[in-house]
Amino acid sequence: MWPTLKNDNFLRACLRQPTDHTPVWLMRQAGRYLPEYNATRTQAGGTFMGLATNVDCATEVTLQPLQRYALDAAILFSDILTVPDAMGLGLSFEQGEGPRFAHPVRDEAAVARLAVPDMAKLRYVFDAVTSIRKALAGRVPLIGFSGSPWTLACYMVEGAGSSDYRRVKTMLYARPDLMQRILEVNAQAVTTYLNTQIDAGAQAVMIFDSWGGVLADGAFQRFSLEYTRRVLQGLQREKDGARVPAIVFTKGGGPWLDEIAASGADVVGLDWTVNLGAARARVGARVALQGNLDPSVLFAPPDVVAREAVAVLDSFGAPQRADRGWDGHVFNLGHGISQFTPPEQVAVLVDAVHAHSRRQRLVR
Amino acid sequence: MWPTLKNDNFLRACLRQPTDHTPVWLMRQAGRYLPEYNATRTQAGGTFMGLATNVDCATEVTLQPLQRYALDAAILFSDILTVPDAMGLGLSFEQGEGPRFAHPVRDEAAVARLAVPDMAKLRYVFDAVTSIRKALAGRVPLIGFSGSPWTLACYMVEGAGSSDYRRVKTMLYARPDLMQRILEVNAQAVTTYLNTQIDAGAQAVMIFDSWGGVLADGAFQRFSLEYTRRVLQGLQREKDGARVPAIVFTKGGGPWLDEIAASGADVVGLDWTVNLGAARARVGARVALQGNLDPSVLFAPPDVVAREAVAVLDSFGAPQRADRGWDGHVFNLGHGISQFTPPEQVAVLVDAVHAHSRRQRLVR
Repeated sequence: MWPTLKNDNFLRACLRQPTDHTPVWLMRQAGRYLPEYNATRTQAGGTFMGLATNVDCATEVTLQPLQRYALDAAILFSDILTVPDAMGLGLSFEQGEGPRFAHPVRDEAAVARLAVPDMAKLRYVFDAVTSIRKALAGRVPLIGFSGSPWTLACYMVEGAGSSDYRRVKTMLYARPDLMQRILEVNAQAVTTYLNTQIDAGAQAVMIFDSWGGVLADGAFQRFSLEYTRRVLQGLQREKDGARVPAIVFTKGGGPWLDEIAASGADVVGLDWTVNLGAARARVGARVALQGNLDPSVLFAPPDVVAREAVAVLDSFGAPQRADRGWDGHVFNLGHGISQFTPPEQVAVLVDAVHAHSRRQRLVR
Repeated sequence: MWPTLKNDNFLRACLRQPTDHTPVWLMRQAGRYLPEYNATRTQAGGTFMGLATNVDCATEVTLQPLQRYALDAAILFSDILTVPDAMGLGLSFEQGEGPRFAHPVRDEAAVARLAVPDMAKLRYVFDAVTSIRKALAGRVPLIGFSGSPWTLACYMVEGAGSSDYRRVKTMLYARPDLMQRILEVNAQAVTTYLNTQIDAGAQAVMIFDSWGGVLADGAFQRFSLEYTRRVLQGLQREKDGARVPAIVFTKGGGPWLDEIAASGADVVGLDWTVNLGAARARVGARVALQGNLDPSVLFAPPDVVAREAVAVLDSFGAPQRADRGWDGHVFNLGHGISQFTPPEQVAVLVDAVHAHSRRQRLVR
């Protein structure tokens, strides 16, 4: 049904299998730092959701960074808030404001009304997955994604981004029953959403727990990780005879690395505060690791970009270990790429990762 | 010269000495959640700096929370940006906007012009310290404070708060020489500033590294912790025959707990993402720990506030250990108290900390 995959380094690294080089992709790699992205967005009416809901446009922008750079994976162009939007919360993106929901979930009645959305409302997402997979023609694997149950709940309760998460945390501490009901619905919705992406052609899936790191120790395990774990348990992990790796990325999740590594994920994403070598020593025999360059490094001169990329690779170390075979490392930033990044810096980064990681594999 | 200290539990906990109960104070305890604070601020002209630069007003608002609650320490009412303001950067607080500098430090010329400010320009701070110490009349100790060299540099380069710290990180990666020069000047200025606060009457000092946690592993050690260490090395640690404890609080500093504990601080402040019991096991024989309730807990009903306070105390455990005597714990929030906190919740919290920690000391 699908074209043969030509570059499977990303999938192999996720599964801790031998790789030719350390695969690299960048969170938000199809985005505003690319002039061609901005041009397509303007053509599509100028809005983010205009792009994301148009299958041809979503396909085009997903592939744009792959025309420029030797990236080892593509990621569906979409947003984590498509799921609560399909629940009827009324998503909009105000100019320069970030996302906003017209109908935030703040009281018992609103929580009672919540339900797993009809996946037909998200058909534009699944159609985009299939279209992108076809357009990739086996060049690199396609990653599908979703927000974590907790991260979706943050936006659903706050109604927008927040500096202190006061509303959602108040509900968590004052009415944990309401919070748990939201999280149960979200976990079911995310599970179905990701499984349908896998049916549509996604070869790996990533759960973005962007706001897990705002929780207190104890609350994180109970209100974020527990529901991510439920999603992972419900995912189909084989498709067309191939393992579908699941990546969990908790921004600010360093304090809970061991617990996240035990959640059932194949890969744990790390932000730049984590020492990659120390993380590998702690959990690298159980899961692959993804990360973790500070995106701000891309504002520095090319020699600094290359040097910092090498430092990340050297912190992880050569992926083959005499005592346990291959440890998996997927190179990425520790957060989405900034819209202010000079595009030529990404080429420097990708080439440095490939060149140095090939050298690492020669030294035994 | 000074009145005898009646409640020294805070100082004793900082030095890992026996205490009657776990002392508690709250970051930003003199602040907008208190109606009497807002009243004094209005009388002083409505601005933050109007309050901070008026010795009588600063004294009054510092003591306000102590009239309401059985807090175990007072902290100077001031702002971390007084030092760069005295360097001539032109601090202002826009309505609802946060701090702003008229003359941010963004190029080689601006960096070259930087110098340790004449402490005479900060006399209003030292006068406030002396006035507050007198007004406290030995009731509880007075904490002085400063921003860390790195945190001050963030504001000095960005010119305001930032969501991505793009400018300061670009300088860090592209021109580390300029960044290091800023940090050297800041470290000298902060050292002198804190030593002068100690001379004026501060009985403990705290270094707020509010933005250390935005740095990558490696960069944190080199650009934040190294300069905090220099400040700690230059501090006078004895005054009038008493040890002056130094507290270092790095928001998001969990990944570097061991290194921060080895910096020369007597106390390490922790945010709520850190498991207090695990932190104590790792470093509690070397330093006291301060923290770490999520301030959002104060939005929940009183029984939840009390329960979560007990959970923090129980996570630390009874402070006396058979094998090594007393471990120090200063109860605090993991960040400043929110302006939206109902004041009566603070009484619940303080009383719960005192009552439960006294019970902990009875069980052997």
